[in-house]
Amino acid sequence: TGVAMMKFKSPPVNSLSLEFLTELCISLEKLENNRACRGVIITSAIPKIFSSGLDITEMCGKSTEHYAEFWRAVQEMWLRVYGSNMVTVAAVNGSSPAGGCLIALSCDYRIMVENPKFSIGLNEAQLGIVAPFWFKDTFVNVVGHRTAERSLQLGSLHPAPEAHRLGLVDELVPEEKLQEKAAAVMAQWLALPDHARQLTKSMMRKAVLDRLVAHREEDIQNFITFISKESIQKSLRMYMEMLKKKKS
Amino acid sequence: TGVAMMKFKSPPVNSLSLEFLTELCISLEKLENNRACRGVIITSAIPKIFSSGLDITEMCGKSTEHYAEFWRAVQEMWLRVYGSNMVTVAAVNGSSPAGGCLIALSCDYRIMVENPKFSIGLNEAQLGIVAPFWFKDTFVNVVGHRTAERSLQLGSLHPAPEAHRLGLVDELVPEEKLQEKAAAVMAQWLALPDHARQLTKSMMRKAVLDRLVAHREEDIQNFITFISKESIQKSLRMYMEMLKKKKS
Amino acid sequence: TGVAMMKFKSPPVNSLSLEFLTELCISLEKLENNRACRGVIITSAIPKIFSSGLDITEMCGKSTEHYAEFWRAVQEMWLRVYGSNMVTVAAVNGSSPAGGCLIALSCDYRIMVENPKFSIGLNEAQLGIVAPFWFKDTFVNVVGHRTAERSLQLGSLHPAPEAHRLGLVDELVPEEKLQEKAAAVMAQWLALPDHARQLTKSMMRKAVLDRLVAHREEDIQNFITFISKESIQKSLRMYMEMLKKKKS
Repeated sequence: TGVAMMKFKSPPVNSLSLEFLTELCISLEKLENNRACRGVIITSAIPKIFSSGLDITEMCGKSTEHYAEFWRAVQEMWLRVYGSNMVTVAAVNGSSPAGGCLIALSCDYRIMVENPKFSIGLNEAQLGIVAPFWFKDTFVNVVGHRTAERSLQLGSLHPAPEAHRLGLVDELVPEEKLQEKAAAVMAQWLALPDHARQLTKSMMRKAVLDRLVAHREEDIQNFITFISKESIQKSLRMYMEMLKKKKS
Repeated sequence: TGVAMMKFKSPPVNSLSLEFLTELCISLEKLENNRACRGVIITSAIPKIFSSGLDITEMCGKSTEHYAEFWRAVQEMWLRVYGSNMVTVAAVNGSSPAGGCLIALSCDYRIMVENPKFSIGLNEAQLGIVAPFWFKDTFVNVVGHRTAERSLQLGSLHPAPEAHRLGLVDELVPEEKLQEKAAAVMAQWLALPDHARQLTKSMMRKAVLDRLVAHREEDIQNFITFISKESIQKSLRMYMEMLKKKKS
Repeated sequence: TGVAMMKFKSPPVNSLSLEFLTELCISLEKLENNRACRGVIITSAIPKIFSSGLDITEMCGKSTEHYAEFWRAVQEMWLRVYGSNMVTVAAVNGSSPAGGCLIALSCDYRIMVENPKFSIGLNEAQLGIVAPFWFKDTFVNVVGHRTAERSLQLGSLHPAPEAHRLGLVDELVPEEKLQEKAAAVMAQWLALPDHARQLTKSMMRKAVLDRLVAHREEDIQNFITFISKESIQKSLRMYMEMLKKKKS
């Protein structure tokens, strides 16, 4: 049918580790180069979680070289998803904070399970860190400047119904209808001629994509400087401790 | 009263041919230079159709020189409507795809007949072609980035109630109330001092107008290159065949 | 608690005179430099009016030097409020036209008394003058391009319920709940780590702040040229006459 299904399966919570991001980029590159593939549905194989976002262990107590390699992989992933020539549909079947939210925001269409226990948002500020400018640009392109400003400053995680009200996701469905709905949306988008659709998508997203491409090394240096600060390292360690306690 | 009424009447469907565009520009220029004229209501004299958009016969099997002349006229029309010093109200009394939608989007206010059989949108992608960047800029300024991105990629034609929900039109009225409503809106806008209103309008639209002015020749070349492709010519011929069959 | 309360009290209508603006800037600077202060609630001590906006007597029949000094103070006030590191909550307990609306728009959050007799908006066009580009940029960042374009051209003063519908204010409350609500919102925003919140706020607002900083002297010259025109002086004198008659 020309549609690939990409199911995140990295227990326990689909953290975006360096390894996970690298595999994701390779998979996307293969699909992108496969002419038979015109669309991809991104979802999770793990119950209740779409993706928990960037793997904090990759940002804690590592070398400068490691931070650079990790951040480059995060950039690469976004450039590939946001700039994909394929139709990309996020079937969000669980919570999706931070980097997980970014993946959904970078798709062409977002369908989320209507369970209000599932939430989505760029909650970086809650962890004492700052979403980079291209996370912000992607967010503004979806929800507009005001909603983005408020949500980013509060580090809000929006329950599914609120996310829908804000335009952060396009549609809510019962869990058992998610795959069927994603396939139907994909069929609707694939009904258009690829060439015209791709040029139109590129016209809409080029300014924001180009901005990261033009400032990629600078953005890596900013990340390294920021993440290497003792105060930030401390915040992240405390956050990880808190997560561990929550789990046990 | 200082208000002109411009009624499109080019049967069967108010296609924007080179001749039609040239006449439209001359009429607008005359009104613009007439100090007694402070506003213009744009509507259609043909039932069920506001304007069907650019005349495809002008883009099919013609010379490079013809494409250049045609595209320059399309640009000129938009520069005049979007940049008009007059108050411009679109009284959309029928369907309004592609270039027809652009004219409505370029006015200060859009009132549409509430009939759900009438639709409006930038549906270029459905024909295998791409709306130029200034169609897109105008659209984004009205409905925002996200709605524009989705609508342009799907080449959506929105039935009147949906168009209203998306903000593509400002107001819906029963057909028999359209002219009365358009006159009332015009009176409301003309109650403001011209000079302040004009400077404010220019402040809001200047960036987008300047962008085409700065890239006008380049945009003409892009159009010629794109429209001259055999694949695009084939798409357009098929689309015209389809329209002919539909008619008969 | 780290929260300051700033109550405008300049009878009869909290006009933004040069003196008032100067005092406001000094107060903000003191708070900004006081590490114990993390947030400020801005409200009015005068019933039914938040602020009536720029003091027209400062713009009428004065010297070029005076106009320059006055306009610099208006710019300074906006740069301080829009760029504040503190959490800024506007508790809008009365009408708030023009410059008064700008102060509210420049805060992080706007709560307004739900009384439909109170209105808010950038109504400059009604007076025959034009809101400067940075008023417009601030407005667009809150309500989006289309709503701003229409509202600015019509010089609309929106009754509280309409202002809420347009997103111009975030929330409506009964008058007796205003201070309680403002404190609760402040507590919610202060729950975030200052550093991450401040960097995020700066990321969202920097482009618009930088634009005025880069064109500050030019903007002052524009103001002087515009306000010195005999036609504008006449408009303002007529407006003041009208206000006086209304009062008596």
